[in-house]
Amino acid sequence: MQTIDKLISAPWIIPVEPQGRVLEDHALAIHEGRILELLPTEEAQARYRPETHRRLERHALIPGLVNAHTHSPMTLLRGLADDLPLMDWLQNHIWPAEGRFVGEGFVHDGTLLAAAEMIRGGTTCFNDMYFFPETTGQVAARAGLRAVLGLIVIDFPSAWAGDAEEYITKGLDIHDRYKGDALLSFCFAPHAPYTVGDDPLGRLATLAQELEIPVHMHVHETAHEVEESVARFGMRPLERLARLGLVGPNLLGVHMTQLEASEIRYLADTGAHVVHCPESNLKLASGFCPVQALVEAGVNVALGTDGTASNNDLDLLGEMRTAALLAKGVSGDAAALPAHTALRMATLNGARALGLGESTGSLEPGKSADITAVDLGELETLPLYDPVSHLVYAASRHQVSDVWVAGRPLLRDRQLTTIDLPDLRRRVADWQRRIAEAD
Amino acid sequence: MQTIDKLISAPWIIPVEPQGRVLEDHALAIHEGRILELLPTEEAQARYRPETHRRLERHALIPGLVNAHTHSPMTLLRGLADDLPLMDWLQNHIWPAEGRFVGEGFVHDGTLLAAAEMIRGGTTCFNDMYFFPETTGQVAARAGLRAVLGLIVIDFPSAWAGDAEEYITKGLDIHDRYKGDALLSFCFAPHAPYTVGDDPLGRLATLAQELEIPVHMHVHETAHEVEESVARFGMRPLERLARLGLVGPNLLGVHMTQLEASEIRYLADTGAHVVHCPESNLKLASGFCPVQALVEAGVNVALGTDGTASNNDLDLLGEMRTAALLAKGVSGDAAALPAHTALRMATLNGARALGLGESTGSLEPGKSADITAVDLGELETLPLYDPVSHLVYAASRHQVSDVWVAGRPLLRDRQLTTIDLPDLRRRVADWQRRIAEAD
Repeated sequence: MQTIDKLISAPWIIPVEPQGRVLEDHALAIHEGRILELLPTEEAQARYRPETHRRLERHALIPGLVNAHTHSPMTLLRGLADDLPLMDWLQNHIWPAEGRFVGEGFVHDGTLLAAAEMIRGGTTCFNDMYFFPETTGQVAARAGLRAVLGLIVIDFPSAWAGDAEEYITKGLDIHDRYKGDALLSFCFAPHAPYTVGDDPLGRLATLAQELEIPVHMHVHETAHEVEESVARFGMRPLERLARLGLVGPNLLGVHMTQLEASEIRYLADTGAHVVHCPESNLKLASGFCPVQALVEAGVNVALGTDGTASNNDLDLLGEMRTAALLAKGVSGDAAALPAHTALRMATLNGARALGLGESTGSLEPGKSADITAVDLGELETLPLYDPVSHLVYAASRHQVSDVWVAGRPLLRDRQLTTIDLPDLRRRVADWQRRIAEAD
Repeated sequence: MQTIDKLISAPWIIPVEPQGRVLEDHALAIHEGRILELLPTEEAQARYRPETHRRLERHALIPGLVNAHTHSPMTLLRGLADDLPLMDWLQNHIWPAEGRFVGEGFVHDGTLLAAAEMIRGGTTCFNDMYFFPETTGQVAARAGLRAVLGLIVIDFPSAWAGDAEEYITKGLDIHDRYKGDALLSFCFAPHAPYTVGDDPLGRLATLAQELEIPVHMHVHETAHEVEESVARFGMRPLERLARLGLVGPNLLGVHMTQLEASEIRYLADTGAHVVHCPESNLKLASGFCPVQALVEAGVNVALGTDGTASNNDLDLLGEMRTAALLAKGVSGDAAALPAHTALRMATLNGARALGLGESTGSLEPGKSADITAVDLGELETLPLYDPVSHLVYAASRHQVSDVWVAGRPLLRDRQLTTIDLPDLRRRVADWQRRIAEAD
């Protein structure tokens, strides 16, 4: 009998890799934050002497969900302005509110609220793009979440930095100080082709190669963006990024609702990743990302919620569902984006896009014990013929019961273990009052 | 001081009629199952002496949700077959399972499961289409739900009836016996243009006029249906129905994903209703209902979940959200189908389509006290700037805390008051075993 930290057993384990597998009555053996083995629960009890054995009787265990694109601190602006076109929404509501309130305090409290919501929804890793990324990283790490901090670059001044040069310098400083952190990693996050000029973009291409970190960017979000680029630069944004050396296995192109067949092939050929944000694209009427065509071309497609100001939640279970439903409608094929593929997009594909494919995104021996348990015993997921169908098409995020990152429990029986809820509520109430008064 | 049965007070009441109104710190005064008055809570306490006063501190009160199209008993087939084209799904999975299992027992237990799920999700009224409608009605009434029973007619034999004539006869018999019931009402439910011939459809047109009850039918669900009709009858289904006298204020056309501009005008001119089922249309890749164009033309558009076999839930809060998001994507207009309109579709528009607009669907004096309370104090709906935005874009159905129909509580603090949960679980487990073995 081998002494280990933890056994977690459940009626169903969906490891995601290999694809399509569902293990019944299995357990995860966990030691020092890593997965040792997946094996039948009966065998596990004979082989291991765990410090704790968490027995889940109605649950599916899945890899912790990976939110490949969000703006966590904006959670404080949830529902501030809806039912508006993108530019009206940005220029008349979101940017003025940000201009007035964004600072370390806003980023701290917004990230804390986002972290609580993400943990309660089964997310264990998120890729963020916002100002004051160090603060976001500190809050995430304290909450126990895995975070990829976007080192934001934009040609406009903000409370965080004055110009592209300062954004890059400040980002590199954070990168150097936190390099090797167990939970935090980094990507460059130039905001969008229409807000960052050629010089800083070229510099980021070089730096991303040197430092081997991804580049996370809104690309081809709307038809307007593409038209404007053609008028201004004489080419579509993707071509411009390609000429600047940014399109390759380092690139996470977010949204990508406007894609020609040749661009889909080009993304596949270069190994670039696409982050699909279906609910944000719908809500802002940005267009439809051709997910099924991308998947068929071999492009790695991950899932993101975008920020809550345009979603309005950080619910990856819900986002999987919207992605699976919408892909069928858009492609006209009810067999498009089946449940197992949707789950893979929300887990392993996200981890791979973020350069974390070796450490998270699937339940495999040697990987970090980043795990989400979903209670499939509620009425809303009965009867049960296929647990993966229910995870994608029927379960709600309140059925997430337990969440672990590197073996550490962040949610236990729906209770947050790393975040002080009354304190968080007070902070959010204070921001609500201030922001509502100003709007 | 007037003695009344009940006061329910909350920070927000959204009566739906008048449209767009949000009442703060108001109460509903309820007596003998009806709404007496909406008034500021402070005034209500001065004017009324209620037997009970339910004080909800973080909640929005909305009219009970109206599910304008479902097949309740099919809840026993939830998730049995997904990611398949409509005809493969029907012919190789759903119809064989129905052929083997459908009977009074199946309908009883499936409806009971659906009733529990609907109540937990804030639905107070549903419009059903299935075999053995009397059984569905009995279960619904016992659970305290308002139900519109579709008197199904189809040209094929089933366990319920042998031919169209028998379906009609049996339906009329149920109608006669339950006429005037407080919770149950009726509509004719010819399945679809492609499964019911001209003779029975013509007869239903006459009967619907005579008995003044609606006709509830799948119409223009897919392009294939329209093409087949053109090949077989030389005209599109809507035109065929019009010639048979079925298109008018009595008609609820469900799905309607295939509509030409002239057909939209015709629906508006004749006063026909459309029931939009966005998640089912997406999942089966049936096409996109042009909701925004219908609304602009003045057509009354209601919302339905369809059956759980093609959704896979009976979650009207979620369906509102999908409808509001999808309408923006499909119309290319982020201002399309704003939150207040989505809520109206899921409440008053449904009631009106079903001929129940005088008794339910909004919180107005004289109407039945059909009320849903949604707790907006959970983290996922914080901060709060606009309760209607949160109801549509952020809240999940587990935030539904209390539900009343005609003043009777069906859900209290998330607990079902009219359904025996352990008994229901045993019934569902038994069906799950039998159906899984046969599939």
